Amino acid sequence: MIDQLIHKIQQTAPIVVGLDPMLSFIPQHIKDEAYQTYGETLEAVGEAIYRYNQEIIDAIHDLIPAVKPQVAMYEQFGIPGMIAYQKTIIYCKKKGLIVIGDVKRGDIGSTSEAYAIGHLGHVMIGEQSYRGFDTDFITVNPYLGSDGVNPFVKVCREEDKGIFVLVKTSNPSSGEFQDQLIDGTPLYELVGEKVAQWGLECMGEQYSKIGAVVGATYPEVGKRLRQIMPHVFILVPGYGAQGGTGKDLLHFFNEDGLGAIINSSRGIIAAYQMDKYQHFTELEYAKASRAAVLDMIKDIQSALTHRG
Amino acid sequence: MIDQLIHKIQQTAPIVVGLDPMLSFIPQHIKDEAYQTYGETLEAVGEAIYRYNQEIIDAIHDLIPAVKPQVAMYEQFGIPGMIAYQKTIIYCKKKGLIVIGDVKRGDIGSTSEAYAIGHLGHVMIGEQSYRGFDTDFITVNPYLGSDGVNPFVKVCREEDKGIFVLVKTSNPSSGEFQDQLIDGTPLYELVGEKVAQWGLECMGEQYSKIGAVVGATYPEVGKRLRQIMPHVFILVPGYGAQGGTGKDLLHFFNEDGLGAIINSSRGIIAAYQMDKYQHFTELEYAKASRAAVLDMIKDIQSALTHRG
Repeated sequence: MIDQLIHKIQQTAPIVVGLDPMLSFIPQHIKDEAYQTYGETLEAVGEAIYRYNQEIIDAIHDLIPAVKPQVAMYEQFGIPGMIAYQKTIIYCKKKGLIVIGDVKRGDIGSTSEAYAIGHLGHVMIGEQSYRGFDTDFITVNPYLGSDGVNPFVKVCREEDKGIFVLVKTSNPSSGEFQDQLIDGTPLYELVGEKVAQWGLECMGEQYSKIGAVVGATYPEVGKRLRQIMPHVFILVPGYGAQGGTGKDLLHFFNEDGLGAIINSSRGIIAAYQMDKYQHFTELEYAKASRAAVLDMIKDIQSALTHRG
Repeated sequence: MIDQLIHKIQQTAPIVVGLDPMLSFIPQHIKDEAYQTYGETLEAVGEAIYRYNQEIIDAIHDLIPAVKPQVAMYEQFGIPGMIAYQKTIIYCKKKGLIVIGDVKRGDIGSTSEAYAIGHLGHVMIGEQSYRGFDTDFITVNPYLGSDGVNPFVKVCREEDKGIFVLVKTSNPSSGEFQDQLIDGTPLYELVGEKVAQWGLECMGEQYSKIGAVVGATYPEVGKRLRQIMPHVFILVPGYGAQGGTGKDLLHFFNEDGLGAIINSSRGIIAAYQMDKYQHFTELEYAKASRAAVLDMIKDIQSALTHRG
């Protein structure tokens, strides 16, 4: 799957769009229609989220290799939210997109195995095989150590799927634990070394199926982690709304122009609410998303072109 | 909610039963019946899990204060699994049990907020208020630092719910990152100090709504963390199947006999498969669970009685 992701990046751009719908992002006409059909219910919201996502995907799927739905934004609406998550995954895959489930799961061994099966693998029920959420990649939290991560690595190998392990997150207080120095080395570097090591167990052609998450908001950290994990693909959140810009991102890429994929969420899916795209009406929200994707591609490609 | 938990512990015992159903735990007659009605489908498994849980809950609910469903075991079966999770929560609460959702969620601020809302809080849809999964407590992963945990703390305060933050987990490789020394202090102590600090922001009568997870498999660590976090309730996994015993647990309690709640999962719910309870048939699996709960209570109360 990492090879397919790279292939698609080479055809398009190293970006991924975060499908993190908040109720406040969804245009009123979509909500009204859903409320009319289902009442003011969780089912209505699930349907509205799905409709909202669909129109965005239709407008941008030819420009990008992948999407990253943030499961929390669906989980907050209970079962109908999770159904919208699943339908979004299916729709994106039908449109040829690679789907990175931003689930940040992680637990002790037997439990991580269940998560890995539910999001990347399959279960056998009698003679029948079923897939729970069936994303191509997911994000994984490493706090429990190797035996919490290994079940994900195993499923990646068996199913040709992938994970991105949290190494240095994009949020302001990420340093509270992740930056702590252990004999002079920050914890995120130790985690990065482990990710590189886990990665060797399931390599694709040039890069491993085991990737890392490193926030765009910490470019110097990205530079260092890029060196420590040469064969690890880095998923980079924090571009746009969280403050990262194109030139901050150079260090996350290898000399081959690969090795990183930059995420933007609200900066794309809620572009129509931003000053920059105010010439798009609420009805044209998906067109605004397309314009924002094109601008993001330009920003990143221009930074990559003028590097070094 | 922490006060209600303590009140219920005082009426029963400081234990919690992990409802972590694996397909291999579920007696054949339950699976057969579900397959007959729904075919070999995820829906059948969801129904079988719920039936299996119900009978166990019926058999043990008068002996214990709380249950802890592990969401991964449900999530692995996709939407039908999540429906079984939700139905289990509702059923347990109807039986008067406090429900600790073992979800180990944690993300950057706005995303943690969505998780907190989905599992502990409520959403407003127009004029209507809905609760997604509506557990009383959940477990939370601290790797992202304060701004990833604060939204959970906020919802605990607003809704009188609670969380248990992972400090030192019970698995063999938990030390890989959690034990790393920062100026001579292990990371789990730094996390423990933060938990104590977050806890002060939302105290119940004697203990905080913000608890900690510390594995039974590391009793010396439990002793130290008990000192660092005097007002923090500790959820202790790793008893029984993972190797912890009654006497290992003493250090997790305060002098008042409170401050800890010990979890056992497969040792209770799959007791009928253990040598010790082989006089129970597969049909009597819930009776075996009751016997195992009674033995666990005896083990822990005897250890507490003979302390110091």
